[in-house]
Amino acid sequence: MPTQPSLALPTFADIEDAATRISGVAHRTPTLTSRTVDARTGAQVYFKCENLQRGGAFKFRGAYNAMSRLSAEQSRRGVVAFSSGNHAQAVALAGKLLDIPRVIVMPTDSPDVKRVATAEYGAEIVLYDRDTEDREAIGRRLAEERGLAIIPPYNHHDIVAGTGTVALELLQDTGPLDLLIVPCGGGGLLSGTALTSRALTPECRVIGVEPAAGDDAARTFRTKTLQTVKNPDTVADGARTPSLGPITFAIVMANADDIVTVDDPTLLREMFYLWERVKVVVEPTGALAAAALLSGAIEAKGRKVGVVLSGGNVDLGQVAVWRTRL
Amino acid sequence: MPTQPSLALPTFADIEDAATRISGVAHRTPTLTSRTVDARTGAQVYFKCENLQRGGAFKFRGAYNAMSRLSAEQSRRGVVAFSSGNHAQAVALAGKLLDIPRVIVMPTDSPDVKRVATAEYGAEIVLYDRDTEDREAIGRRLAEERGLAIIPPYNHHDIVAGTGTVALELLQDTGPLDLLIVPCGGGGLLSGTALTSRALTPECRVIGVEPAAGDDAARTFRTKTLQTVKNPDTVADGARTPSLGPITFAIVMANADDIVTVDDPTLLREMFYLWERVKVVVEPTGALAAAALLSGAIEAKGRKVGVVLSGGNVDLGQVAVWRTRL
Repeated sequence: MPTQPSLALPTFADIEDAATRISGVAHRTPTLTSRTVDARTGAQVYFKCENLQRGGAFKFRGAYNAMSRLSAEQSRRGVVAFSSGNHAQAVALAGKLLDIPRVIVMPTDSPDVKRVATAEYGAEIVLYDRDTEDREAIGRRLAEERGLAIIPPYNHHDIVAGTGTVALELLQDTGPLDLLIVPCGGGGLLSGTALTSRALTPECRVIGVEPAAGDDAARTFRTKTLQTVKNPDTVADGARTPSLGPITFAIVMANADDIVTVDDPTLLREMFYLWERVKVVVEPTGALAAAALLSGAIEAKGRKVGVVLSGGNVDLGQVAVWRTRL
Repeated sequence: MPTQPSLALPTFADIEDAATRISGVAHRTPTLTSRTVDARTGAQVYFKCENLQRGGAFKFRGAYNAMSRLSAEQSRRGVVAFSSGNHAQAVALAGKLLDIPRVIVMPTDSPDVKRVATAEYGAEIVLYDRDTEDREAIGRRLAEERGLAIIPPYNHHDIVAGTGTVALELLQDTGPLDLLIVPCGGGGLLSGTALTSRALTPECRVIGVEPAAGDDAARTFRTKTLQTVKNPDTVADGARTPSLGPITFAIVMANADDIVTVDDPTLLREMFYLWERVKVVVEPTGALAAAALLSGAIEAKGRKVGVVLSGGNVDLGQVAVWRTRL
């Protein structure tokens, strides 16, 4: 009896509900400013630090919101998620807090550090071979066999509602903004941000940022038709998603103002700038929005700008490799 | 007409004055918590993030406090500081804000990134050869020739008073603590912290942490006699100071509760733990206190603990080298 992801579009009221639901469980992450960044951009910049969120990324908000709305029967049976990244950790952690069994389907070649973190949160891990097996098929089979609810990474009413709380907190801290810039993979964060911003500060421009190699959402936005990309070669592993989903497509098209891209060398250079100058550890995907601003891909002089740093899960063993790609 | 550093001992009233003086100029840095750290230590841990301070370290507080108290004549003539590290950047930046000319005496082999940062703040840089020249002699000569005031890195009434504001803000955020742990080099931060803590929470234990190779302050504390160390081989470059100064010695002996040490491999391991799990970039010296807590060198189970992360200026090119030393 697997639950089908709800295809209803969330509203700002759902985001306010989610804020109540995650209150005291998710961190209310700090908003940081940097005079160095302001001087460099000529803007007034506010970084919303979701890299400091539980599980190391904004993903916890959506996962906890969705899982806390499951029925008693669903909660007893458990959930399944397929992800090698931050969504997996978010579901594992949320399930631990809500006492919901959870199975995470991860590729055999996923980094030790992510497997360990997911296992530490007490999730059951099912490994699959990325070359010969289909993770969604495995996930669906597990869902049917065991009656597990699938918790998708972005294309879900409650996941989007949860992510909308990021912008809600940011705007509470900063007041009205001229510009709000967020990373874009499957469009969950961009959708939640755009809904919140439209409701609270309709004049604010909301811009998503993708890696140049995985520019499906940017092309989708331009052509107004859903575009896809397959296994794009980018260091922004959280934005390798093949396309927006039906829910995020609908919300993004109606509410976002633009989607731009940054290439990997620019992304890594500006990510390390954040480490060295702002002193926060942000992962490549989490630095997409900041990189677009800092590199000048988005012009912001004289504006009041919110930037979401969406995640900070890195393997420091990668630093030396990344530095060769600047 | 060089100014002699004042040898008067600062009091808590001087720290309160310093807080007023730096208000709106220095960042009121955030206090971060981490459930992962709390679970690991069994304590309730509050990190005071001076790595997010202007200039990347707590040093700005003392430098600005001291330089804003100079006479009009002294301010016109300017100041001199000898440092290859965070104190240099702090003096350079404070002088820029206060419109005071400043000369920084730096070794020819200091990292490019530090020379660039110091120059960006508009300081005049005088280079010296570490092997054949004496930076203090050069500094004193410049002070005499040009009538510059020497701004020492720690052994100075106003510098210690400025650093005391770190603990003041932390205690305002957290309320009374059981334990307050700070890095110790020349003892400026430890002195300011101990004075504030004694005034506001007399029961709180105040502990300094040194690198094991540069354990002069720990030996000083144990023997109650000033001990020295010469060019200790440690990655904690901000704590390579030869000894406490007369002022910091007096304050530390009267007000600190203990000084402990951590070795370099432990320090680097726990520093990277802060990067990976707490998502903040802290330099080795800045991670000393956290490393003592996390490694168990200081037992804190069940306690409410403040930990100062004192600085975050790193050259990411060092990461690969540091990782070989774990």
